[in-house]
Amino acid sequence: MDDMRNLVYEIAGRLYDLDADVYRTLGSGLGRVFNSSREETIRHLTQVMKEHRTSHYLRSSLALIGNMARTIPEKAERSRVMTEYNEIWQLIQKLPEHFGAVDILDKSLAGLNQTLAQNPLANRFGPGQHLIVCIGRTYGSAGTDIGFALADSLKINYYDTEIFTEVLERLEAKEDGIQDHASFAHGQNLNQNPQAVEKGLGIRGRIRQFSRYHGLPKTQAVFFNQTALICEMAQREDFVIMGRCADVILTNHQIPHVSIYINAPFETRIHRIMRQDNLDYKSAKKFLQKIDRRHRTYYEFFTSRKWGDVVNYDLCINSASYGIEGSVQLIQRLLPPRD
Amino acid sequence: MDDMRNLVYEIAGRLYDLDADVYRTLGSGLGRVFNSSREETIRHLTQVMKEHRTSHYLRSSLALIGNMARTIPEKAERSRVMTEYNEIWQLIQKLPEHFGAVDILDKSLAGLNQTLAQNPLANRFGPGQHLIVCIGRTYGSAGTDIGFALADSLKINYYDTEIFTEVLERLEAKEDGIQDHASFAHGQNLNQNPQAVEKGLGIRGRIRQFSRYHGLPKTQAVFFNQTALICEMAQREDFVIMGRCADVILTNHQIPHVSIYINAPFETRIHRIMRQDNLDYKSAKKFLQKIDRRHRTYYEFFTSRKWGDVVNYDLCINSASYGIEGSVQLIQRLLPPRD
Repeated sequence: MDDMRNLVYEIAGRLYDLDADVYRTLGSGLGRVFNSSREETIRHLTQVMKEHRTSHYLRSSLALIGNMARTIPEKAERSRVMTEYNEIWQLIQKLPEHFGAVDILDKSLAGLNQTLAQNPLANRFGPGQHLIVCIGRTYGSAGTDIGFALADSLKINYYDTEIFTEVLERLEAKEDGIQDHASFAHGQNLNQNPQAVEKGLGIRGRIRQFSRYHGLPKTQAVFFNQTALICEMAQREDFVIMGRCADVILTNHQIPHVSIYINAPFETRIHRIMRQDNLDYKSAKKFLQKIDRRHRTYYEFFTSRKWGDVVNYDLCINSASYGIEGSVQLIQRLLPPRD
Repeated sequence: MDDMRNLVYEIAGRLYDLDADVYRTLGSGLGRVFNSSREETIRHLTQVMKEHRTSHYLRSSLALIGNMARTIPEKAERSRVMTEYNEIWQLIQKLPEHFGAVDILDKSLAGLNQTLAQNPLANRFGPGQHLIVCIGRTYGSAGTDIGFALADSLKINYYDTEIFTEVLERLEAKEDGIQDHASFAHGQNLNQNPQAVEKGLGIRGRIRQFSRYHGLPKTQAVFFNQTALICEMAQREDFVIMGRCADVILTNHQIPHVSIYINAPFETRIHRIMRQDNLDYKSAKKFLQKIDRRHRTYYEFFTSRKWGDVVNYDLCINSASYGIEGSVQLIQRLLPPRD
């Protein structure tokens, strides 16, 4: 108790003296932050430190003195003053109630966040840990191109909606004994042999326990099957996966991953798909609105979360500010070091 | 023209052969992506490459073959196959219409984005360029604490709303010849000498041209003054600035900067300010809603943009996934190297 009172008193006194010192060092033309007497200032500052709600005044005073101190032209003088500044800041951090003392960290989120440099729950991450990058994105934001280029440069597997749907349909076809059921989401056949996908992806082992959830509507059955497949893949390999609410699925199953959302301004996206899909402005806009609506409905139905809301991801990127190549580089800089 | 036809034909043929090669290498138990004859597959693939809208099938085939090739257990074999895979991918990138050929990069945004590693408009960045980190944030997301800690670790100046308002009010007071006008946004006096702020921040030179825009309502006059001050600061020093629509102001004035938005889930923010401000759940929630509303109104009035929308920033961070320290480290990893 007395220790704390002494600490508060020491901080107030040294802060007052630092202000005076900066004032002296910068010459008479420059003013100071505290103009009352030493006693009065200390009384005021100790009061501020006692109350949570006013503790930001302490930060503001400290920042103002620091901003001024950094303008001291003479290097040795500046270094001397900044050393004292840093020591006071160290002392302030010892206060249980100092600004920033209450962290915002949510351990359940942070523990699953593979881009957190020094993960406080690092013990959860065994050597068999796989890197899983989940990318949510809007149509036209080049999110899919970024995901593919990222997987390529990391030399890990890539799953977009089409590949994923293909794999699932083949699993279902196999279950039903249908061999030639393969078709892509958009209705085009890639001429794939079902066995190629199953065995190539190494999921032979789990086919038997694969259920079609006959009691459920089709969409929900597919979602449940997706969930099972994503969780199994996560135990086996590194990969980049586009959409499929993969981030929510992995979070629900307590599997660490990277959760990223990619978007770009609506107008920029319109102009991109005008070029890419060879559409006029009006058609492109209408098409985009339709796809966005479908995306949103899907995500919100299965996750009960707001689609594209910053707080549903670890990180959101405006791809118009980075481009495809720049976004890949940005994400790579965020990833944990790999063997 | 003929060159392009040859390129398309070469890609299709080598892709078919790669698939067959992967099939052979992985043994007879493993299937292939293309099951038709070589001729038929090539005809199909060349068709796909000709049409924009179907070019993603090319990506999906390539990705599927790549995913399988990476499972080849024998290293030399895998390396041989992946070399061919990479060569085909290089060829695909020569197609003017290949997936990802239309970038999403907005040069006007990218040219102002200081976190873009290899800025394509790098020539715009002279040696006198200053690092300016603009942080928008929600109350309770610890954005201010992150900003302060970031400025401290970068050893650059820090401006939050209070310091900024203080500086502006002192400038206005000076203009009016009022000496003792200083008060913080929250109504508490820091006992600062106006001269301290003015001269300490080195803005003496621009006081004379400082206008109060008497014809405008108070809020708008303040906003105009802020704009002038932010732009001037940007020419003089590195700094972190919280809020004040600084990112929009700098974008409008074509001044490069880092644009970040920090948010955290509403419930997490409620619980943080319950601890920080010593409030019960209900009061904290009500207070947060009020502050969010005020923030939003301010931002949307002056920028005509949607507050907190991903596409208004280069990058958005969920501080609950990173915590204060983790967020600072994350932002530091994104910043350009400095002298």
